[in-house]
Amino acid sequence: MALTFEMKERDGLGRLCILRTAHGPVTTPALLPVINPNKMTIPPSQMKQEFGAEMIITNSYIIRRGPELRERALKDGVHKLVEFDGPIMTDSGAFQAYVYGSDKDQRSDSVQILPSEIVEFQRDIGVDIGTILDVITPRDATYEEAKKDVDETLARAKATVGLKGNMALNGTVQGSVYPDLREDCARALGELDIDVHPIGGVVPFLEAYRYGDLARAIIAAKKGLPPSRPVHLFGAGHPHFLSIAVLLGCDLFDSSSYMKYALDDRMMFNDGTRHFGDLDHLGCNCPVCSSHTVEELRKMQKPERLVLLARHNLHVLFGKIRAIRQAIHEERLWEMAERDARAHPALLEVMRVLGSEGEFLERFEQTSRACAFMHTGPESRLRPIVRRYRDRLLKRYSLPKALANYVLPETTKPYSDYCIKHLEHLEKHGVHFVVESYFGPAPLELDLMYPIAQSMSGSISEEERKELFVLWAKLEEANGITFEKWTEAAARSAEKAKGKGLDIDLLRMTAVASMQFGPKAAKALLKGKLEYVKSREGRIRNVIVDGEHVLSLRAHDGMFTLKAAGAKRIASAVKSPQLRVIADKDSAPFVAEGKNLFCKFVVDCDPELRPGDEAVIVDPDDKVLAVGRLLMNREEMRSFKVGVAVKNREHA
Amino acid sequence: MALTFEMKERDGLGRLCILRTAHGPVTTPALLPVINPNKMTIPPSQMKQEFGAEMIITNSYIIRRGPELRERALKDGVHKLVEFDGPIMTDSGAFQAYVYGSDKDQRSDSVQILPSEIVEFQRDIGVDIGTILDVITPRDATYEEAKKDVDETLARAKATVGLKGNMALNGTVQGSVYPDLREDCARALGELDIDVHPIGGVVPFLEAYRYGDLARAIIAAKKGLPPSRPVHLFGAGHPHFLSIAVLLGCDLFDSSSYMKYALDDRMMFNDGTRHFGDLDHLGCNCPVCSSHTVEELRKMQKPERLVLLARHNLHVLFGKIRAIRQAIHEERLWEMAERDARAHPALLEVMRVLGSEGEFLERFEQTSRACAFMHTGPESRLRPIVRRYRDRLLKRYSLPKALANYVLPETTKPYSDYCIKHLEHLEKHGVHFVVESYFGPAPLELDLMYPIAQSMSGSISEEERKELFVLWAKLEEANGITFEKWTEAAARSAEKAKGKGLDIDLLRMTAVASMQFGPKAAKALLKGKLEYVKSREGRIRNVIVDGEHVLSLRAHDGMFTLKAAGAKRIASAVKSPQLRVIADKDSAPFVAEGKNLFCKFVVDCDPELRPGDEAVIVDPDDKVLAVGRLLMNREEMRSFKVGVAVKNREHA
Repeated sequence: MALTFEMKERDGLGRLCILRTAHGPVTTPALLPVINPNKMTIPPSQMKQEFGAEMIITNSYIIRRGPELRERALKDGVHKLVEFDGPIMTDSGAFQAYVYGSDKDQRSDSVQILPSEIVEFQRDIGVDIGTILDVITPRDATYEEAKKDVDETLARAKATVGLKGNMALNGTVQGSVYPDLREDCARALGELDIDVHPIGGVVPFLEAYRYGDLARAIIAAKKGLPPSRPVHLFGAGHPHFLSIAVLLGCDLFDSSSYMKYALDDRMMFNDGTRHFGDLDHLGCNCPVCSSHTVEELRKMQKPERLVLLARHNLHVLFGKIRAIRQAIHEERLWEMAERDARAHPALLEVMRVLGSEGEFLERFEQTSRACAFMHTGPESRLRPIVRRYRDRLLKRYSLPKALANYVLPETTKPYSDYCIKHLEHLEKHGVHFVVESYFGPAPLELDLMYPIAQSMSGSISEEERKELFVLWAKLEEANGITFEKWTEAAARSAEKAKGKGLDIDLLRMTAVASMQFGPKAAKALLKGKLEYVKSREGRIRNVIVDGEHVLSLRAHDGMFTLKAAGAKRIASAVKSPQLRVIADKDSAPFVAEGKNLFCKFVVDCDPELRPGDEAVIVDPDDKVLAVGRLLMNREEMRSFKVGVAVKNREHA
Repeated sequence: MALTFEMKERDGLGRLCILRTAHGPVTTPALLPVINPNKMTIPPSQMKQEFGAEMIITNSYIIRRGPELRERALKDGVHKLVEFDGPIMTDSGAFQAYVYGSDKDQRSDSVQILPSEIVEFQRDIGVDIGTILDVITPRDATYEEAKKDVDETLARAKATVGLKGNMALNGTVQGSVYPDLREDCARALGELDIDVHPIGGVVPFLEAYRYGDLARAIIAAKKGLPPSRPVHLFGAGHPHFLSIAVLLGCDLFDSSSYMKYALDDRMMFNDGTRHFGDLDHLGCNCPVCSSHTVEELRKMQKPERLVLLARHNLHVLFGKIRAIRQAIHEERLWEMAERDARAHPALLEVMRVLGSEGEFLERFEQTSRACAFMHTGPESRLRPIVRRYRDRLLKRYSLPKALANYVLPETTKPYSDYCIKHLEHLEKHGVHFVVESYFGPAPLELDLMYPIAQSMSGSISEEERKELFVLWAKLEEANGITFEKWTEAAARSAEKAKGKGLDIDLLRMTAVASMQFGPKAAKALLKGKLEYVKSREGRIRNVIVDGEHVLSLRAHDGMFTLKAAGAKRIASAVKSPQLRVIADKDSAPFVAEGKNLFCKFVVDCDPELRPGDEAVIVDPDDKVLAVGRLLMNREEMRSFKVGVAVKNREHA
């Protein structure tokens, strides 16, 4: 295999991976500076040393066209040609064919090359990742025109994929502004022996500020592609869109913009580009900007300034890539993307597109996060974690049998620490409370569960209130109750009614287990004599059922860690493949000994499980092997060739 | 005078100024790194060379306490002591008294110094800007306690201001969380011969994320202080709050945080601080972060890493200060502040505080901007420019006499380019249209005026719709009409009615002139035979009335430049001081020759005029001298000692 691609960390569809090539590993998300083989103003060695570039991209069509470059590339290889010892990706001339026309157009400057020739040429000069000669669709193409280009792209891919030899191959997803074409193209390419998938033809979107369409194009491609293939957003090297693209699952980016902009005396910043002439102050702290004044740059000759501006642009891009990697590591990528979306009103539109794609995004959304949910604006409530909370509240949670159900206004978190009186009423008089939280109705007993307690929430708009009203009504309907307002009169009548008090600990355990594992599994987990080990602050830590340690409650997200005894209870209560990951026969003994379950040994998995979820690992005969924490969802673990699918925490 | 302070550029209350001191000029907003005279880990010379620090701050109390430092400071002066040839500010020990108690507390480590002694000492060691020994109020103080501390601070200020000699003096505004105390304190200090005003006691706000209270404290201080005094936000050197503080009118900042945080292995970023141990990637492009990996820093000995982290922190702070200066230059400070407010939900609260202080902020808000109004979220509609547009629409604008007034939904801008049909109806059949714009009702004839055309607007929330509904109703009431919905039936009935067509050019001129100068002046300006000079695209450029060039319409903001003939028409139509700036007798001849009007020669000014407004410059006898563009409002031009108040464009 020419490449391996392994996921190390994630935040939703955003992921931090290691792409291993014949010329060494690359951490993704990665930015590949575009190198012009005819004019290396900033040579590849400097790209590595000054900016930490691990991979570069250059153009095989340009190398092939110039007789001298071609000779040298064929003789010494492309690495020697550009003097770079890391992995090299090449483009195929598709862009040149788009701009200057192709062979068929019979123009003197048109691109005269066969799809097979360019793949063979890339292979022969020792490129690490070459590119099939795809067809870029013009911006205003009709659906039929776009479909024709997709068909031609696919035909060429099929015809040339067999020529790749030891080279890895880029198969570019086209389809213009038509999401179904993008998805079909992606799915068809996904079935071929292709290694990396650029998403092509996106520059016109960027130039026209059609960020919503761009987001739709990326999501459509991701829907069609196997999740284990690296995705490259071709030609989108602009700092303000990078975090959003990574959030949508893009791994690789290239930038010729650093140099194009510098040639035009333009500088990139995180909030957009500016012409150097419009600057009075260098609002950046890169090595260039912190050691020069505008005045000094202005006085320079253009060639000298050009290099400095190009270096500034690269520092901004590479700094942003590092910040994105750190955001994945911290699981704060949503916040970063929401903040970056404020760079332009058209970018905010993307956040609404993400809201409408919530069903797809939720499949990749982890169970909880190490950090708090931070509200950055009305768009924050469109995140998939909010959608999941609301869905599960309706589908998995049941209100306890109570004397009455009262609504409490939002208060300081965790609610139970500030609703002492209400808790007393609950325990003594059997009345139940649901808080009007930022996320929707929050039963008092769920107040410690992510994201209810672990959130810095903001104001709720009128629109949101209306949506939430529907949710409250559905919760009433599902449970056959009517919510009432908590008043002093209600408190007095609760005291009088002498209802049977509720057990808050039991409510908590039942509610959290139901939200996390579903009501059936929850019932099985908690059936029997319950005992708790509590922390010094009185928070439940371990749940002992009939003398067995079945569950532990995590302090940081208020969710359960499943113990081996719990896994067995689940396995006997719910049918396969529910709450299970099925390991193949060969790996079963190793998993039973405590080894992690690697992707390649996964037979199947409950499609409802999410990254971060607890699951029972079983063998093909449904024998319980271990309990583990998923690092991937079903689609991912069945697609990735390398890497851990489930972290083994306790074997049976 | 020890200091002069001159405004060069502005964006609302935010301003770019030159502070001239005995040791050279400082551009503000400025960050003053705190230098510990006992341990200069990063020496002041490096502060200047590596970070561009123009001024530093150190602590006179600490210098005075140490016998050796004291000797050397008194003998050689403070500049020699810390080896810095730029301006030096010193603090007075008020913070130490706050932490360790003062003399009266009779603790062994309490601060033993008289307010007069510390002022004299600062003066004697050659400090550029010394500080009065103010009293910092503890965080949870009652109103009475806070008032007592304010009284003591004022008493000390009065008692010691006379001792300052050639030194400039900081008079710190206290008052805890009580805006009226802050404002009273500021006003009383403003009457003394004090040079700079720190806003003190704000660290507890920052530590408790009480950003809303902090914003209220700053605004209260600004309301009380003369606008010409530099304002220093003491102890607020955190990158995510800087742009907001500058937007509120703060000029100077200090940072000991760069070192405090580094000592604690913490790194500052624009979106908050992070512990070094939590980092896997350095998401920053400063010289430190772009030349080191986390791994390298981790392996270092602590003292070596300390210097690097401190340098990183300084690069982040100084880069942010430069970005803020550039934002003022571009007039995009509101956007930057709104974006920075997304760093934490508590910061977003500040934007709501600004909304409630709109009346004060509007007084400093310029007429229009060189750049478009960019929506960043629901908070954008709280900007003072929106408030002003709505106010003026009700107070200054009148709907034309039309057959009917129709409402059009928001469309592409400028509206008249996309509402060709509607414009035809208006001109032929005398029906009038008002667009449901982001800013509120936008009469078709105002469609080229800032900010209507020059905006990238966003979605309108339900709450906003309700507020806007009230505005529409008020507009109906003020004009005695009822808006109708534009339908095909309405179009047919308009055609049938054979009403008298409206003159769109005349509507435009009347509407823009009324919004800009008020209806009375508009009438006077446009009375007579109207002729227009139009651009190639058909846009009006010059307005000729009875053969005289009275007004020019600017392409970039769709507003008028007043010509000398227009100024004379205004002067005879509206009474002094309306639309006037009154120059004193001595300067009158120079202004009449075309010289700019400097602050110190301003006798008075129409309080309704705003920075960027066109005004008639008259002498004390109301003789028209010239036409000019205001760089300041009335409060500012009467307060500033240096600088241009009105740019003279055409003399009479």
